[in-house]
Amino acid sequence: MADKSQKSGSQNQPQQATIRHALDVSRKDDFAAWYQAVVSQADMAEESGVRGCMVIKPWGWGIWERIQRLLDDRIKETGHDNCYFPLFIPLSYFAKEAEHVEGFAKEMAVVTHHRLKAEDGSLVVDPDAKLEEPLVVRPTSETVIGHAMGRWIQSWRDLPLKINQWANVVRWEMRTRMFLRTSEFLWQEGHTAHTDKAGAMDETLLMLEVYRAFAEDVLAMPVVAGEKPENERFPGADATYSIEAMMQDGKALQAGTSHYLGTTFADAANIKYQDDQGAEQLCHTTSWGVSTRLIGGVIMTHGDDDGLRVPPRIAPHQIVLLPMLRGKDGDSELLAYCEDLKKHLTAQDAFREPVRVLLDTKPGKAAQKRWNWVRKGAPLIVEVGPRDMAGEKVALLRRDQLWTDEGKANMSFEGREDFLFNAAGMLEEIQLGLFEEAKQRRDDAIRHDITTMEGLAEYFAEGTEKPGWVKAAWSRPTGEALDKVVEQLKALKLTIRNTPQGDAKPEDPCIFTGEPAVETIFIARAY
Amino acid sequence: MADKSQKSGSQNQPQQATIRHALDVSRKDDFAAWYQAVVSQADMAEESGVRGCMVIKPWGWGIWERIQRLLDDRIKETGHDNCYFPLFIPLSYFAKEAEHVEGFAKEMAVVTHHRLKAEDGSLVVDPDAKLEEPLVVRPTSETVIGHAMGRWIQSWRDLPLKINQWANVVRWEMRTRMFLRTSEFLWQEGHTAHTDKAGAMDETLLMLEVYRAFAEDVLAMPVVAGEKPENERFPGADATYSIEAMMQDGKALQAGTSHYLGTTFADAANIKYQDDQGAEQLCHTTSWGVSTRLIGGVIMTHGDDDGLRVPPRIAPHQIVLLPMLRGKDGDSELLAYCEDLKKHLTAQDAFREPVRVLLDTKPGKAAQKRWNWVRKGAPLIVEVGPRDMAGEKVALLRRDQLWTDEGKANMSFEGREDFLFNAAGMLEEIQLGLFEEAKQRRDDAIRHDITTMEGLAEYFAEGTEKPGWVKAAWSRPTGEALDKVVEQLKALKLTIRNTPQGDAKPEDPCIFTGEPAVETIFIARAY
Repeated sequence: MADKSQKSGSQNQPQQATIRHALDVSRKDDFAAWYQAVVSQADMAEESGVRGCMVIKPWGWGIWERIQRLLDDRIKETGHDNCYFPLFIPLSYFAKEAEHVEGFAKEMAVVTHHRLKAEDGSLVVDPDAKLEEPLVVRPTSETVIGHAMGRWIQSWRDLPLKINQWANVVRWEMRTRMFLRTSEFLWQEGHTAHTDKAGAMDETLLMLEVYRAFAEDVLAMPVVAGEKPENERFPGADATYSIEAMMQDGKALQAGTSHYLGTTFADAANIKYQDDQGAEQLCHTTSWGVSTRLIGGVIMTHGDDDGLRVPPRIAPHQIVLLPMLRGKDGDSELLAYCEDLKKHLTAQDAFREPVRVLLDTKPGKAAQKRWNWVRKGAPLIVEVGPRDMAGEKVALLRRDQLWTDEGKANMSFEGREDFLFNAAGMLEEIQLGLFEEAKQRRDDAIRHDITTMEGLAEYFAEGTEKPGWVKAAWSRPTGEALDKVVEQLKALKLTIRNTPQGDAKPEDPCIFTGEPAVETIFIARAY
Repeated sequence: MADKSQKSGSQNQPQQATIRHALDVSRKDDFAAWYQAVVSQADMAEESGVRGCMVIKPWGWGIWERIQRLLDDRIKETGHDNCYFPLFIPLSYFAKEAEHVEGFAKEMAVVTHHRLKAEDGSLVVDPDAKLEEPLVVRPTSETVIGHAMGRWIQSWRDLPLKINQWANVVRWEMRTRMFLRTSEFLWQEGHTAHTDKAGAMDETLLMLEVYRAFAEDVLAMPVVAGEKPENERFPGADATYSIEAMMQDGKALQAGTSHYLGTTFADAANIKYQDDQGAEQLCHTTSWGVSTRLIGGVIMTHGDDDGLRVPPRIAPHQIVLLPMLRGKDGDSELLAYCEDLKKHLTAQDAFREPVRVLLDTKPGKAAQKRWNWVRKGAPLIVEVGPRDMAGEKVALLRRDQLWTDEGKANMSFEGREDFLFNAAGMLEEIQLGLFEEAKQRRDDAIRHDITTMEGLAEYFAEGTEKPGWVKAAWSRPTGEALDKVVEQLKALKLTIRNTPQGDAKPEDPCIFTGEPAVETIFIARAY
């Protein structure tokens, strides 16, 4: 790969040195191309050859495994049980739903046959093996889980029923982008049933808070938790809440949703219970989910012009040890020295957290291996050569402090004992630093001083470099009045993201109508 | 549920007491009905309403989660990386495979359309949304992973490439049985590529050994690891190995397979590398997998007439604490006492392993709750009433020692401290005890003294109660000679399971041909 040393510049002005970055496209020049470059060069995922479906490679998958495990712990801690429901949903289940749910997305993969047959030396679909009823590959599981709930719930004693599944789902997307929008994606979907609205709303907001805390604590991704406007609700929901994150190009990413479904789905799937007076009642249900889209959010929150920076809590390897092997005498001592470092780092004792360490002994040139790990975003890269070993030292590269002011790789040399003692703390520092950096950037890119549609149009005018979000006051119009606002915003390629929780009633008038406002909203371009 | 007290019997003969079991069907009377009763009454899974697909409920899913986590650790320890590949495989990928692989199973779910549309107030498949190329829901992923390997491998330096995925797969089964044979099932599939046959064979046998050790150490399920006969190979494989377990009805269950694929799939998917001389070579590949079928194996290995007995290492809850709540004063002290027990049991310290504990405070009668957990097979059920608390005691029911000789529930009363000190050890004892019991039963049910087809026919004749396995000598016929043997066995509903590893060359002649034998085989009825 490219030479990483300082580009030739005036020796009198070291501050002016130009850093030659590890990617050949920058965020500033072409954010979309930069995103694809990170996905590819950090070895996260690739096109599969199957339309709209990706292959998630080990580094990308390792991040998803960490997300799954840590979020699953929180889902279980809040009293949910995991189950598994079928991939296929009979068409008739949707037909029933459709009566209740206008605007249900209809782009789905449909299984119509169950056999192939040989013909002219090739395989074709056997026309004699047509299914009596077509099966839809689940785009989400409200219908099939609703039917199960209908079977499982008899009395108020069975409530609340709180379940979750980790699964693949398919929505036939026309334009796909890796992790952000793919035909097949992976997610968790929680589904709960309650005796009344109060219980279901508590659950809806509990899971919104679980998502907020998870995004911020684990992904180091600051988010705004709040209610979506009426026009952005999940079809059939009485209320939809989301967490919204700001990407480095200023756009919003909806990173998780939590829905209060009222009794709509209970009515369609016959989810009823006998209350303590013996009367039959409809359950109030909720659903909530996050997906592999979170990985796209992590990339666009923490990536830089050298590739990805993975927050330590979700890094498959938090520390990568690179021994400078030379294929000769001395290699075995060097390996033993590194094995010993690894042993100490991964040991659990009362004073240190165990750390996830890879000792990378694959063949390849040392510099090339280093820059591969920089692009992948391993939080700490530790190089050990014979001289380091002799001096009981290691050479340390922090992914979040990659360059010196002079534009050189910012290697520091640490004594072995100091490094072992400080490693876990350093990872924690990187985790918090990434969050603070992202939060500062987001907060700086939120405008609070735009109070009219003209101001909005001007701020988001073509040519404005990376506009952020506008936080504005509004009067919460509904129905046709809201449709008109949505139409106006659409002309500017804008959407209302959500109403943040806990804001005071604003003093400004409604940005759309000039009427007295009731709450604040975020307006932004979005993925 | 049924009264669990001793059935009325002669008081002079307490040894003769009849135990009224928690299930209303016994293994002896109807093994298939007993299996369904356990699946249902242990709350493992249920029919979903979608043909051939099941809903896996929390207790069944919790067992699968434990299996996944513990096997995944072993897969990673042996140097494999997890990835994720698409659910859909273009039909043309199979067509190419079909040239090489005769007998490829053709019962697959085929997606032909990508949209629904509203019609007459219902939803139908939109005929205008036909896919240009049909997509097959993966029945296994050799083809799509092979294509990826073809892209990823350039030189010998990229080898071995060792990957694994956890995924759902679909095979359109006509007759399904929960966990054992379902249209959709969950599994892991490992796929590796190597420079030569020796490396690929090492891998094939390594994973066979990983499966053997996992089945025995973790599932407490004794298995025979060995090579399948030629006629039972995975289509396209040069050699197929399996682990075979004996169920309590004497039938064999193939519980995992590991295949050496030679260069067949490499040739089809163009998986080539440049060797260290610069010459292009085909890779030698392997694949190996286990599935949710393992749960069926656990049920039929460890279940008894009271329901399931879950080996502690895979039990979602190893200890269930049942406080005898009365809905009055004193409940809060009792709960606090149980919370404290749980805290001590789940604490990790240098002297004790942490234990997975459920404090079950759901409404319901104490006896009913106890028998629910008996049927589910929680290893230790601990009841705590106010008197136990006052005496610093607990009442303990070991699932593996459920009944006294007098036919009563075998409750023992233990001091709190003793219980806390002994709990982890008791779980270990149960784990080992379940394995020893199953191994003894299997070994007792293997016949070594049958050396002719007549003897075989007699042993497996209709009316013989639960025949086990026959271990016999054979001359390893191939081609048509083998076909003839397979045909003869089929008439007796028998199959050759595998050739166990490590057996000495037998002295008996071949059971089929009378010719000198070269190795031993297991012959059995099978699932």
